[in-house]
Amino acid sequence: MTVVLGDNQYGKAETHVVRVTKSGVRHEIKDLTVSVALEGDFAETHLTGDNSKIVPTDTQKNTVFAFAREPIGEIEEFGIRLARHFVSQFASVYRARLHIEEHAWSRISVGGKPHDNAFVRAGSEKRLATVTCTDDGTWVVAGIGDLVVLKSSGSEFHGFVKDQFTTLPETDDRILATSVVARWRYAGTDVGWRDSFSEIRRFLLETFAAKHSLSLQQTLYSMGEAVLNGRPEVAEIRMSMPNRHHFAVDLSPFGMANENEVFYASDRPYGLIEGTVTRDDAPEPGLAW
Amino acid sequence: MTVVLGDNQYGKAETHVVRVTKSGVRHEIKDLTVSVALEGDFAETHLTGDNSKIVPTDTQKNTVFAFAREPIGEIEEFGIRLARHFVSQFASVYRARLHIEEHAWSRISVGGKPHDNAFVRAGSEKRLATVTCTDDGTWVVAGIGDLVVLKSSGSEFHGFVKDQFTTLPETDDRILATSVVARWRYAGTDVGWRDSFSEIRRFLLETFAAKHSLSLQQTLYSMGEAVLNGRPEVAEIRMSMPNRHHFAVDLSPFGMANENEVFYASDRPYGLIEGTVTRDDAPEPGLAW
Amino acid sequence: MTVVLGDNQYGKAETHVVRVTKSGVRHEIKDLTVSVALEGDFAETHLTGDNSKIVPTDTQKNTVFAFAREPIGEIEEFGIRLARHFVSQFASVYRARLHIEEHAWSRISVGGKPHDNAFVRAGSEKRLATVTCTDDGTWVVAGIGDLVVLKSSGSEFHGFVKDQFTTLPETDDRILATSVVARWRYAGTDVGWRDSFSEIRRFLLETFAAKHSLSLQQTLYSMGEAVLNGRPEVAEIRMSMPNRHHFAVDLSPFGMANENEVFYASDRPYGLIEGTVTRDDAPEPGLAW
Amino acid sequence: MTVVLGDNQYGKAETHVVRVTKSGVRHEIKDLTVSVALEGDFAETHLTGDNSKIVPTDTQKNTVFAFAREPIGEIEEFGIRLARHFVSQFASVYRARLHIEEHAWSRISVGGKPHDNAFVRAGSEKRLATVTCTDDGTWVVAGIGDLVVLKSSGSEFHGFVKDQFTTLPETDDRILATSVVARWRYAGTDVGWRDSFSEIRRFLLETFAAKHSLSLQQTLYSMGEAVLNGRPEVAEIRMSMPNRHHFAVDLSPFGMANENEVFYASDRPYGLIEGTVTRDDAPEPGLAW
Repeated sequence: MTVVLGDNQYGKAETHVVRVTKSGVRHEIKDLTVSVALEGDFAETHLTGDNSKIVPTDTQKNTVFAFAREPIGEIEEFGIRLARHFVSQFASVYRARLHIEEHAWSRISVGGKPHDNAFVRAGSEKRLATVTCTDDGTWVVAGIGDLVVLKSSGSEFHGFVKDQFTTLPETDDRILATSVVARWRYAGTDVGWRDSFSEIRRFLLETFAAKHSLSLQQTLYSMGEAVLNGRPEVAEIRMSMPNRHHFAVDLSPFGMANENEVFYASDRPYGLIEGTVTRDDAPEPGLAW
Repeated sequence: MTVVLGDNQYGKAETHVVRVTKSGVRHEIKDLTVSVALEGDFAETHLTGDNSKIVPTDTQKNTVFAFAREPIGEIEEFGIRLARHFVSQFASVYRARLHIEEHAWSRISVGGKPHDNAFVRAGSEKRLATVTCTDDGTWVVAGIGDLVVLKSSGSEFHGFVKDQFTTLPETDDRILATSVVARWRYAGTDVGWRDSFSEIRRFLLETFAAKHSLSLQQTLYSMGEAVLNGRPEVAEIRMSMPNRHHFAVDLSPFGMANENEVFYASDRPYGLIEGTVTRDDAPEPGLAW
Repeated sequence: MTVVLGDNQYGKAETHVVRVTKSGVRHEIKDLTVSVALEGDFAETHLTGDNSKIVPTDTQKNTVFAFAREPIGEIEEFGIRLARHFVSQFASVYRARLHIEEHAWSRISVGGKPHDNAFVRAGSEKRLATVTCTDDGTWVVAGIGDLVVLKSSGSEFHGFVKDQFTTLPETDDRILATSVVARWRYAGTDVGWRDSFSEIRRFLLETFAAKHSLSLQQTLYSMGEAVLNGRPEVAEIRMSMPNRHHFAVDLSPFGMANENEVFYASDRPYGLIEGTVTRDDAPEPGLAW
Repeated sequence: MTVVLGDNQYGKAETHVVRVTKSGVRHEIKDLTVSVALEGDFAETHLTGDNSKIVPTDTQKNTVFAFAREPIGEIEEFGIRLARHFVSQFASVYRARLHIEEHAWSRISVGGKPHDNAFVRAGSEKRLATVTCTDDGTWVVAGIGDLVVLKSSGSEFHGFVKDQFTTLPETDDRILATSVVARWRYAGTDVGWRDSFSEIRRFLLETFAAKHSLSLQQTLYSMGEAVLNGRPEVAEIRMSMPNRHHFAVDLSPFGMANENEVFYASDRPYGLIEGTVTRDDAPEPGLAW
């Protein structure tokens, strides 16, 4: 038996960069958290501490800041530029993966007009991109995180398996609430990133709202199907949806009815529903994920 | 020397109640986290474990749910009803304080039209209310939390004290970013709560944006002043503003200039600026805070 | 009516300093999070943005690091030195408050012997100190946070008020679990800080364990009483104890009994019990809190 | 092109169960957070909302509680029992994965003796187990999380790649601090789980402490190597180690030297080092991860 090194990667995580772009008094801001992970010829540092093939994570951070001096564009583009830099610049780096989270800001409205350079955080949602590059290819996965949604009608759950541990009553009227993380893989890189993102967000929201739900799985699948049907540039979409349970409170001890109006929102435990919706002819994922 | 019991209170914290109000297929939702704190004749439970004057926190939780069956109205109103209940119902309760946080939801837009019963979380801001009641009075403090704002121009900081530990350069152009918690005390309870809240939020945002800032303290004071000048129902406002530092990255080692365009956003440490703006003729705060 | 500035303070929060003290190869570490809050003659920065009396929070941070070069000693001593510096050095500073949290480390044991310079985080508890200084006095409050304790026997709760919203059954056997935050005010500053802290921690833990509990309030009071009876240097102690509910799971639908053996630990809501235990002849608290 | 369902799973996450085992007045407690994830014949619920093959997550939660009535044993054993139940009981379930986190408690010492039924939380570390079962096999991965360690000597970093974005100075003396998450795969299931865990924890800590480090990667590899050399039951170990940077503060502006004594501990960004150490003849991982 010999002990050997297996898969490994390293990089600088969560560099928080804010880029202000100025056209006179009119400013735009980009607020990004950037994480780098490199894979390559790194056995020596593990085995002997020889760092001669190691690009320090500090340098990776500096590179993110230096690249942010040029126009960032969409986060998929910024990720591609950075990932390509790391694989092309350093012989020891075989694969670079950039994970970027974008935090949205809106202009503050003053006297009914959007202000030139004052902003308020626009919600808790995050826009996501994961870009992976090698000498042979570029893979882009985009996404949305912390998209918190709730429907107070149009959700049922019944007809499930019963056994000796079943106590859940069947219901044809429940609250369905979740915090969606959706990540989709693009078939290529010739994409209008911004429009694609905003249309996919729209498909996800509209389908969640409009689809009558017999299970959270059905809702998840329908959301993914709508994205794939509407956006040919998407090869595959993966979703994670915690089922944030809202329990109708039993008010009968107080002589009150509760017609699904008063709910207790529980933190834990929660259901966790995860699924992939794909095309039967989707290109191979390669190193995308 | 004798050991004695001093100030004490107890209650159920963070009951998370979601109330759906239905007008046919059209639903409204209220999403509240409700905390109760009672003060009163509770020495015996401390000294001997005699609970005969103790309203269990479990009962307080039940009460919140039972009261949520009636229309909740604005959180200030819901707080007043609950607080009055506790002081009037129980002889041992001298003072009840309700602290309520409201999480906002927007309707999901489907085909350009707001959906009847599907919602998406509207931002990370929280609306706040703290209501205190005794037999003799009712005090209402409302507020807003997690209001994250940033201005990329119109902020300077100079002319400060220098000593042997000073290294901060003076600047006439910096990013000013903060997460505002503002809480304001009303002079009375005859208030249009919803309008008052939304106008105060507007004053805070507009003043943050429009006021040229020589210090975060000046910005804080101006925001409070705008609220007091614009809203006669407010007696006093207290604000807490962390100074979320954005440092211009030194790109000179890479042969690059940085004209205040590329920033590193730091988590810790942060400045913490806290202040009160009030009227010289404000009524006494009593038990409001 | 005139708008005026009320109470205000500012400072650098959460400077995370780690101090290594070296006696040859033998190292000691102190891991502190230090927050400064200054009160004083700061009206001008609020009203006009004139910062000529403002010690920048950046300088405060530098001062913390510079003072950490000398032996830190106990956190109460470090707080006193820093607080006195700010009030004595700057005419505009009337009151300085230092809040320090200490994170504990133990030596890693190698071959049964404590290592000279390798450490493992020792638990999630925090040691706390809040020191307040003016020209006229020094007040020290020490404390402990995140002290998580549980007793699986010796806890009852019954005899409480019943009303129309009561559903809680009385019990003579429940789990009592809480996360204690205790903060105690010293009568003076001539204290053996380290011993005092460790003895008070022992009194808190032993009393929680040994005291048969008829309510969490009774447990809280007994813990405070033990501290005051055992430590004459303590004038007053304030405690905050969330009641972390552990509900016995109803296994009867599965044909099983549950003799208080299987519990569901709930996050929210929770009871929150807060109380002060003091001496009848305690000196005035002044600006301690 | 057809849209199709890809990989999917669902289950109840983070059921927090506390089990008290009583031998007269002497109690033991187990404090576990249990997550279930099932894979199987679940296409119908996604496509049509037909739930006839779905075991509700509520039932999964009930099952965890019901199984907790019997002696839990080590978390690996509890996971195996639960996972086997789900695959054997339900034809539609092909694969069950149980992820369990255990939170440690120590007995409170009263008068120098460990108390029978009062406990204090023992640190912030978590013991981990992930058990995966199908009809054909059982895979066990155990682990430790949040193991926070620091060494103030015996760590260097130099000889790395330099490019136009390099500013990091080489050093032969730095603080090395990280929060280890280590997860190891067992070759089989005939293991003394408790001893294996505690010996692996010891190997990890001792190697971190004793190994002179030229890079965090070298430390990681050495830790894994020590585990594999010392514990034949382990086939493979995967580790994730954030490099929690401690920067020596530049005190020279204040006329002071800093001989690596005063450090600023930074939260973000951080290096993230991840790696696997394995045996060249390790059995295939199958569905373990």
